[in-house]
Amino acid sequence: MKKVGIVGANGYTGSELVRLLAFHPKVILSFLYSRSNSGTKISDLYPDLTTVCDVVLTDQPEDVDILFLCLPHKESENWLNQNPVKDETLIIDLGNDFRLNGNFGSRNFIYGLPEINKKQLSGSKSIANPGCFATSIQLALLPLAQKGLLNEVYTTGITGSTGAGQSLQSTTHFTWRNDNISAYKTLKHQHVEEILQQLVSFNNNEISLNFIPWRGDFARGIFTSSTVKTDLELSDIEQLYKDFYADEPFAKISEKPIDLKQVVNTNRCVIQIEKSGNVAVIHSAIDNLLKGASGQAVQNMNIAMGWEENLGLNLKPIAF
Amino acid sequence: MKKVGIVGANGYTGSELVRLLAFHPKVILSFLYSRSNSGTKISDLYPDLTTVCDVVLTDQPEDVDILFLCLPHKESENWLNQNPVKDETLIIDLGNDFRLNGNFGSRNFIYGLPEINKKQLSGSKSIANPGCFATSIQLALLPLAQKGLLNEVYTTGITGSTGAGQSLQSTTHFTWRNDNISAYKTLKHQHVEEILQQLVSFNNNEISLNFIPWRGDFARGIFTSSTVKTDLELSDIEQLYKDFYADEPFAKISEKPIDLKQVVNTNRCVIQIEKSGNVAVIHSAIDNLLKGASGQAVQNMNIAMGWEENLGLNLKPIAF
Amino acid sequence: MKKVGIVGANGYTGSELVRLLAFHPKVILSFLYSRSNSGTKISDLYPDLTTVCDVVLTDQPEDVDILFLCLPHKESENWLNQNPVKDETLIIDLGNDFRLNGNFGSRNFIYGLPEINKKQLSGSKSIANPGCFATSIQLALLPLAQKGLLNEVYTTGITGSTGAGQSLQSTTHFTWRNDNISAYKTLKHQHVEEILQQLVSFNNNEISLNFIPWRGDFARGIFTSSTVKTDLELSDIEQLYKDFYADEPFAKISEKPIDLKQVVNTNRCVIQIEKSGNVAVIHSAIDNLLKGASGQAVQNMNIAMGWEENLGLNLKPIAF
Amino acid sequence: MKKVGIVGANGYTGSELVRLLAFHPKVILSFLYSRSNSGTKISDLYPDLTTVCDVVLTDQPEDVDILFLCLPHKESENWLNQNPVKDETLIIDLGNDFRLNGNFGSRNFIYGLPEINKKQLSGSKSIANPGCFATSIQLALLPLAQKGLLNEVYTTGITGSTGAGQSLQSTTHFTWRNDNISAYKTLKHQHVEEILQQLVSFNNNEISLNFIPWRGDFARGIFTSSTVKTDLELSDIEQLYKDFYADEPFAKISEKPIDLKQVVNTNRCVIQIEKSGNVAVIHSAIDNLLKGASGQAVQNMNIAMGWEENLGLNLKPIAF
Repeated sequence: MKKVGIVGANGYTGSELVRLLAFHPKVILSFLYSRSNSGTKISDLYPDLTTVCDVVLTDQPEDVDILFLCLPHKESENWLNQNPVKDETLIIDLGNDFRLNGNFGSRNFIYGLPEINKKQLSGSKSIANPGCFATSIQLALLPLAQKGLLNEVYTTGITGSTGAGQSLQSTTHFTWRNDNISAYKTLKHQHVEEILQQLVSFNNNEISLNFIPWRGDFARGIFTSSTVKTDLELSDIEQLYKDFYADEPFAKISEKPIDLKQVVNTNRCVIQIEKSGNVAVIHSAIDNLLKGASGQAVQNMNIAMGWEENLGLNLKPIAF
Repeated sequence: MKKVGIVGANGYTGSELVRLLAFHPKVILSFLYSRSNSGTKISDLYPDLTTVCDVVLTDQPEDVDILFLCLPHKESENWLNQNPVKDETLIIDLGNDFRLNGNFGSRNFIYGLPEINKKQLSGSKSIANPGCFATSIQLALLPLAQKGLLNEVYTTGITGSTGAGQSLQSTTHFTWRNDNISAYKTLKHQHVEEILQQLVSFNNNEISLNFIPWRGDFARGIFTSSTVKTDLELSDIEQLYKDFYADEPFAKISEKPIDLKQVVNTNRCVIQIEKSGNVAVIHSAIDNLLKGASGQAVQNMNIAMGWEENLGLNLKPIAF
Repeated sequence: MKKVGIVGANGYTGSELVRLLAFHPKVILSFLYSRSNSGTKISDLYPDLTTVCDVVLTDQPEDVDILFLCLPHKESENWLNQNPVKDETLIIDLGNDFRLNGNFGSRNFIYGLPEINKKQLSGSKSIANPGCFATSIQLALLPLAQKGLLNEVYTTGITGSTGAGQSLQSTTHFTWRNDNISAYKTLKHQHVEEILQQLVSFNNNEISLNFIPWRGDFARGIFTSSTVKTDLELSDIEQLYKDFYADEPFAKISEKPIDLKQVVNTNRCVIQIEKSGNVAVIHSAIDNLLKGASGQAVQNMNIAMGWEENLGLNLKPIAF
Repeated sequence: MKKVGIVGANGYTGSELVRLLAFHPKVILSFLYSRSNSGTKISDLYPDLTTVCDVVLTDQPEDVDILFLCLPHKESENWLNQNPVKDETLIIDLGNDFRLNGNFGSRNFIYGLPEINKKQLSGSKSIANPGCFATSIQLALLPLAQKGLLNEVYTTGITGSTGAGQSLQSTTHFTWRNDNISAYKTLKHQHVEEILQQLVSFNNNEISLNFIPWRGDFARGIFTSSTVKTDLELSDIEQLYKDFYADEPFAKISEKPIDLKQVVNTNRCVIQIEKSGNVAVIHSAIDNLLKGASGQAVQNMNIAMGWEENLGLNLKPIAF
């Protein structure tokens, strides 16, 4: 059994990690770090965890084999500076500190999208876990990028309220958000740079990504539709995608309509392609807290540690 | 045209009053008072009001014919002490300051449930608008109370998130509240005393009301089911209720199943009675912000001013 | 008072017309036609209408001044062939039979988008009411089309379940639709042709509209985001839109973020524009059953009859 | 590995069993029976099951070690008559055919509520799985019944739409159900008899259960509040419940407020007790498809087979 620590365990992605790792056969939760909730049982913050995990949150990190950082963006680097971690520890950062530039001291964080970087992730000690929208949109576009077929992309995506975290905001007030739809960060979402850095490394030429994120009136999940121009036939695109993801346990191409709830409470991404004239639309759906965050972090841990990729990730979908 | 002022116009019930009075044919909005949002247009707080009402909130009240107080509970009295109002002004208080004891200086606040106090409300200058659950539960029980037939009552009610106001709380966070149900203030909701004071004045003997309020995963509305014992036949109870509410424009007895959305965005209360053995259940439903607050306040204004009772209250139901 | 008949009053748009016209000061409901529900009170189908409108549905149409057709697509023409209507009667068809080609016998149906055709609608006897998505998307694009500035448009839109009508379908089953998002009719929604016919008549050159409709997990409303390229500055686009809609009571340009609930239960369309580089995004929101159907039909009636355009349309927004 | 068959695998409870058993370490799915969907892959009906379980539904049952019946009420007996099952096969019926009277041929179905019948269930070959409301309400009342402390009980419960099954009905139409609350089967729900039969066997005297079920606007879960009179102190009641459920892995007493989402997508029941005067309220919450149906069926299988009770039931809660 490997010892695990989670920093920022009191947040949504941190507590999802607890839910996943509590039943993982190869790890034990060694400490759950939280400055603001130190001294409180995690199950007092999240009563669904009662008897599943009643660990008391602490502000005293210990030596562990695997460390997950679930901090607000731009706080991982600070935390690591203040709490030095030995070189042998696998660090998986769920924030965005090391996604664009992975260098930190002697470490070099690998971008943790297993569908492109599985080899580099294997045995790695430093992993930058991708963003939620970034995961959904990249998985929708990677096979085309790999063939150098992307130019202009028009993407609309919708996210559940968990994407906004647990802080109380007017846009997460139930009275406002229920039955409501709104756009935010139009054309300037922070994930665009992250997406383009990866896609361009494949595509070898300029890509423009016009991305409109919407707030949805549900708690979990991301659904994105990306429109591109291509002369490929639909069946050729589908084959391209199937080949690209042939060995991937969590990326699935569907020839039938997909919907968000197919993936909620799972680590999966489902992708469907439609075409009319020379315009193709690629739909993709993930659970933003799992394949878009904590589930993918466990997947990355499994790969880095040389374990079966889906260990602890055979989750019962919510389905209904 | 009568001049109206609304104190606490920046809250939910205050802004609902603006929505109702903006199209009322006998009044003009003279001032909208808010200390915290003074200087801001009401339509900047509530964009649905743009061009409907672009009045700037002020902390300087003026002389008006009709004054609505939409303040947090226990603040109405303070406000009136600090901002003396002349005797000729009709004051309608939506808080709970004067519901149990209506005496304030030379004023005597009448409990503003038109279905029992219409005569006293007519011409009155001081009205204490009932609470939302109090309205739904009283309308469900009044005809039985009037006949002295109430003893023990078991009521469960569910309320939308607007009942909790606009402040950001963990129990109104979308992520928590969506798809969720929970109980609060079990057996000790503050409306029980208000309800009993009215019912007992009719019933002439002891009543016990065991009331369990639930938080619902919707924004608007209250649905309550009250269980009582009675030897009356169902048809007799229905007749009793129909007679009691025969002249009431906003209380309707239904012989068919009722549901909450029948009344959302209206000033109505619908009531249905079911019976098995000697046990009767009375279901009732209202929109908590309208018949449960601002709509009833307008109804009370109409009655007090001698206007048609439903003036400005012919509202299109949301229906779907 | 003008006499009104509604054909298909048992459906969603038909019953919304009843809700609107029951309180309209210039009309009386003369007959409500339904073959399948003939003999039933409309208020038994829609209990929210109890005492508001208890008219019995009939399969015997009468002579009226104004006739609304709320039939499934492609059934209006059949109905008119089987039930001849005299020439003086104003016919407003909410189906899509006459939107693309308005010729029918001696009648010539005018496309009923008041923001472009107000003059032709005034005094008209035949009006083809636009589709719901068609209304939202056209209002978002018209000012640019009028200047010949549209080329390629990428639009994603999301609609409430009422857009799918009242028939029971797997995609309107609560268990499936709750918390779910899905795409349908990708790049081939029937409104695209309707939209382009109007836009091209303004724009004078080819426009391509790549439209992805999504099913939303709410009952009412449409939100669309349309992406275009333009060298105009944001402030110039905003001014263009404000000028274009300067005299329109129901189309509003917002410089601040918009959201769907600003317009639910109103006849309004709110529009917001954002820009980055040479890419502009135009967001728009309507209530699909009001500005997208029955509300716009009443607006068209008012214009055709020479009445005030917003008569009967000063609706209280749901707001929360 | 034991061979499992599921009859009625195309329904909600059947497909939930598939989701649970696909990852259960001691069983393999031998056949999935459905007359109406024979020849179709289960993953074509429920795309979330793609690659998890792609078994083709059949109308030819085979010999298995364990057979689950997930048929509409009153169809289990017919099915068994037409498809004889050998004596060694463990049959778990999720319908209500054998709950009140367990005799069927040489079999005697044990009522499958592990919290009362664990000994009889161990090694049993015939189990009648309890109803969903019946599970939630019994778990809320059993410790009091065991002490003979129950007389009159007033219970209100709310259920998600999955409780109504997958057939398309007006009360499961999204447009109607969203944001809506309604009562059904007031005082005459079919589970009352099932509940009383069990409780009375403990309580040894008359119990009256006045039960009002409500339809909720969510898909999964049941929340019930039961009101009783008792002279016991709150702390004594809590201790009584804790003692009663001390060894139960899935029934948990909470001293803090509970909410429905604590148990959604788990096999747990959480219970909270409140008291005022001589009135006690017991709240309880379960996932109607898991502890209220398929999860409890797996729990019963585990007990009957002598396996660890929570095998395959360490489910990640939806939590958000």
